[in-house]
Amino acid sequence: MSYFAIGVDLGGTNLRIAAVEETGRILQTITTGTEVARGRDRVINEMCDAIRVLANKFLNTGTLTGVGLGIPGIIDMDSGMLRESPNLPGWHNYPVREEIEGRLRARVILENDANAAALGEVWMGAARDVESMCMFTLGTGVGGGIVLDGKIWHGMTGMAGELGHITVEPNGVLCGCGNRGCVEQYASASAIKRMAMEAISSGNAPKLAKALTRDSELTAKQVFDLAMAGDQPAQAIFDKVGEALGVVVAGCINALNLPMYVIGGGVSSGWDAFSPALMKTVQQRSFIFSATTKFDPHAGKAPKPTVITRALLGGDAGLLGAARLPMLAHKG
Amino acid sequence: MSYFAIGVDLGGTNLRIAAVEETGRILQTITTGTEVARGRDRVINEMCDAIRVLANKFLNTGTLTGVGLGIPGIIDMDSGMLRESPNLPGWHNYPVREEIEGRLRARVILENDANAAALGEVWMGAARDVESMCMFTLGTGVGGGIVLDGKIWHGMTGMAGELGHITVEPNGVLCGCGNRGCVEQYASASAIKRMAMEAISSGNAPKLAKALTRDSELTAKQVFDLAMAGDQPAQAIFDKVGEALGVVVAGCINALNLPMYVIGGGVSSGWDAFSPALMKTVQQRSFIFSATTKFDPHAGKAPKPTVITRALLGGDAGLLGAARLPMLAHKG
Repeated sequence: MSYFAIGVDLGGTNLRIAAVEETGRILQTITTGTEVARGRDRVINEMCDAIRVLANKFLNTGTLTGVGLGIPGIIDMDSGMLRESPNLPGWHNYPVREEIEGRLRARVILENDANAAALGEVWMGAARDVESMCMFTLGTGVGGGIVLDGKIWHGMTGMAGELGHITVEPNGVLCGCGNRGCVEQYASASAIKRMAMEAISSGNAPKLAKALTRDSELTAKQVFDLAMAGDQPAQAIFDKVGEALGVVVAGCINALNLPMYVIGGGVSSGWDAFSPALMKTVQQRSFIFSATTKFDPHAGKAPKPTVITRALLGGDAGLLGAARLPMLAHKG
Repeated sequence: MSYFAIGVDLGGTNLRIAAVEETGRILQTITTGTEVARGRDRVINEMCDAIRVLANKFLNTGTLTGVGLGIPGIIDMDSGMLRESPNLPGWHNYPVREEIEGRLRARVILENDANAAALGEVWMGAARDVESMCMFTLGTGVGGGIVLDGKIWHGMTGMAGELGHITVEPNGVLCGCGNRGCVEQYASASAIKRMAMEAISSGNAPKLAKALTRDSELTAKQVFDLAMAGDQPAQAIFDKVGEALGVVVAGCINALNLPMYVIGGGVSSGWDAFSPALMKTVQQRSFIFSATTKFDPHAGKAPKPTVITRALLGGDAGLLGAARLPMLAHKG
């Protein structure tokens, strides 16, 4: 008999729940109308209701291996508590796993949402042919996930993969984490908006200024569209995205020498605008990247190139990765 | 019957060979007078002679499990060839393992010297109580080694752990690798000498200038002694060492969340001069470091702090780590 699992993607704004077959096929997705901001108990109750609906609906098609839940924030892996989550006010030190397991009487595995997305891309997406990879999720902030030999690398306390807070400009922009010059301040959607406002203030970005006059607020998409249309100030912002991201990707290559680095999240749809600067920066800043991508006629074998590529699964990466968690635990 | 192994540390200037018991006790060390610069074949022959001497001498005390060899440079793990080694001219694309195995008719395991040093510290040194760690070897250059779950992390092509070439100043000093602002340009002995010469040129470092007049060349040790004696320009150089190293250590903590980061190599004897800036930088630039080192009364358990500490084994780290390689391979 086949297996299926339930994956939950608890975002800062949306809640999605899916039943997923062991083959990776999504049987059904429920996107609740719940605004996460409306409160913890309401979110948990709607989540559990949706999980029960899906669990019952597909009970005849296979065995339910468990529930995986991707959450934005820092999770204590031992206790299943949410330690910090800037996007989920009121959830601080909340025993998420215990509460859900109590309601469902089923096994629940928690995971950081960016880690879940990385696992999803390894399972069914861009990284399905490699065992180890590193994923950057460029959204409102910048998240990260590292998969080594097929498993999410959690580190000592489950906090590994916080790639968004790696320093790329020692004297750079102040970050919410207290540091200066985190990559999140240059490669996130918020950073793109901030840099666009800075360009407008400088008086040298007339097209960005005009877009702002038309709408009350600029979006990263508008900046991208202008960059693609050849607007130099807009392109300069995406160059900065690529350069900042390139510093961190190059650092990860130098430290870990993984076969693949995947760029996902909403901002990754701006790939065409930032990837030239990204690639150029990595080429300059990682001789391992250069060594693995250039052909050495004396090596006597084909090179194994380091691949930097876009994510393939979009918003489903986190959902699929979350569903994968109980399947992997089940396999042992 | 007990086991022993032979470890070799092939440095840029010296060649050391030791017989090491499975308990980690060094039975005997041979330091050859060979200048490595005198050529590859001479080095290989002296190395093999010394290995034979030690192998025969201790044959009655236990079984020889094999030979481990730490080499500065990038090794192709599959073929046992040395790909790049700035400190070993003439060894480029040389089949080191094959040559030595042919002479000795014994199993030889090659490893990058900084990786071997990391393994040595995990086995018998500062990191003996942890399974995972990251080590920075601050010498003429800056090397690195990452041990995860007791094993050296090699990455896809054996090049992982090149921590010395991680960018800390995007527009910083040009490095031999082609990049700008590698940590090696701020935290190595060569960097300390360069920064001292820059300080002297600026005209604002009279004590450093005086030391240079007395001797034909400044050493990192002289700069350290002046810093410890309260000389501000000399201290500023070690502050820079600590800040640059801190950016990379913080990045590694954010990415990997390991329990321990070990600072070794000759420059680590300047710990008292650079560690305050190192710790301050890491505190600012890694919220994982802050989160793991502060006590959270709501966490309901003792924290697991992230430890940053000096290496304990000095020059023996690489020798012990090299000897450990065949022992680990033997265990399977």
